[in-house]
Amino acid sequence: MRVAFQGVEGAYSEAAVVQLLGDSAGPVASETFEEVFSRVQSGKVERGLVPIENSLAGSIHRNYDLLLEHELHIVGETSLRVEHHLLALSGVRLAEVRRVLSHPQALAQCERFLASLEGVERVPTYDTAGSAHMLRENGWRDAAAIASARAAEVYGLAVLAAGIEDDPENYTRFLLLSREPAPPEAATDWKTSIVYSMANVPGALFKSLAVFALRDIDLTKIESRPLRGRPWEYVFYLDFAGSARTEPGSRALDHLAEITSFLRVLGSYPRSR
Amino acid sequence: MRVAFQGVEGAYSEAAVVQLLGDSAGPVASETFEEVFSRVQSGKVERGLVPIENSLAGSIHRNYDLLLEHELHIVGETSLRVEHHLLALSGVRLAEVRRVLSHPQALAQCERFLASLEGVERVPTYDTAGSAHMLRENGWRDAAAIASARAAEVYGLAVLAAGIEDDPENYTRFLLLSREPAPPEAATDWKTSIVYSMANVPGALFKSLAVFALRDIDLTKIESRPLRGRPWEYVFYLDFAGSARTEPGSRALDHLAEITSFLRVLGSYPRSR
Repeated sequence: MRVAFQGVEGAYSEAAVVQLLGDSAGPVASETFEEVFSRVQSGKVERGLVPIENSLAGSIHRNYDLLLEHELHIVGETSLRVEHHLLALSGVRLAEVRRVLSHPQALAQCERFLASLEGVERVPTYDTAGSAHMLRENGWRDAAAIASARAAEVYGLAVLAAGIEDDPENYTRFLLLSREPAPPEAATDWKTSIVYSMANVPGALFKSLAVFALRDIDLTKIESRPLRGRPWEYVFYLDFAGSARTEPGSRALDHLAEITSFLRVLGSYPRSR
Repeated sequence: MRVAFQGVEGAYSEAAVVQLLGDSAGPVASETFEEVFSRVQSGKVERGLVPIENSLAGSIHRNYDLLLEHELHIVGETSLRVEHHLLALSGVRLAEVRRVLSHPQALAQCERFLASLEGVERVPTYDTAGSAHMLRENGWRDAAAIASARAAEVYGLAVLAAGIEDDPENYTRFLLLSREPAPPEAATDWKTSIVYSMANVPGALFKSLAVFALRDIDLTKIESRPLRGRPWEYVFYLDFAGSARTEPGSRALDHLAEITSFLRVLGSYPRSR
């Protein structure tokens, strides 16, 4: 099964593909999120995996927008711990490192570790795995890269220092996308993601949550996003425990459709623990 | 009044300081968000301005964490339209540009424009304004930078192309921080930001929103964030119209305190339209 992800070989997104699907998946590197979506939509690949939220950086609204622009279904989820390592060519010692390459966000997330190295230059790049690739291509022995353990494997680099991120509570949640919905036998424990909008009269959100509370349905995510140009209207992202195709989820969604101006089910999928 | 912001001179955060406070503010460049918070806390500056959410990239959870780690008050807000420009040294023509420097996120947000320029190399850097600074310092006439109109002013660069972002719906909301709360006479129209957590029993969120719905209090933001290591507990970020110091907001918060395991008012401040 071919699975498109954004980034180059060795990216955290590729590690998430392997974590969720194991060796049955053939990860396909893609330049942009748009490319991931269009490759799934056109049938060039069977699945796509995109990040949807990070514990430090929040929800990736861009991917919610792309979900609404395409006719795909969420069929799975996985949460990946983002663990940064300092990688270098084999035999290079920490004291020889004069430059550290990585994406600006990864450099910032390892600020405390980098501050402990004296006289080391921080070099911003496009992505973490791309930095590992550059080390390998150029044979630099005075440089190191901050990237994933998977990037070390892919590019044959040594791990000079492991787990160098300041905050270990760094997780990214990914969604698996497909042209077809997950089959009914895929799970016993389901989760469903929906998007809806309502005019922002006081109590509108409260009313919409009533359809779940009245049926004792557990919510696992709620987020409001203001609609630009329509200052009193909001879109809501909501995840609930259960399937859209069986009761009580199906009845809650019928009820919700009555009171919302827009409602779309993005998919029901096996819940990850 | 000195106002700390994260980034270098000409950063979008600096433009937000000027948009909110005009010429009365003296923006103070700071390396990290942590530095912004600690400069306000220690009294080295009177105010700090930090981004809290972006319309494409979502909420910046890191700054919510820093709000909880410090004893500061939100005393204002402003929403800045993120408009990217292509900047170059005076006299440089678009056809002469061989390299475009900027933060990877800004480069990605101008993908369509960059694809229209043939044979141009994209060079990732730490930040947008820093790229403008590099052009000026090095006198490069074969390069351009993607940055704000303010960066063009600060570094004396010409605007080769204006508004080159793919998606014009790119806004960042900033919060103004102070050691003291906003005085009662600061506004007639208030907004209040709070953080709270509850055990995730079904209907918990519904109950907590009841304290606002029962008083016809308008919500302008709600977001859940799972607490790592405590899989059934969530923290909620909520903004509502009104002040925490006057009815009905004060009574809603009394009521909310009864049913939450943690509640903190981050500040009441003049609402921006």
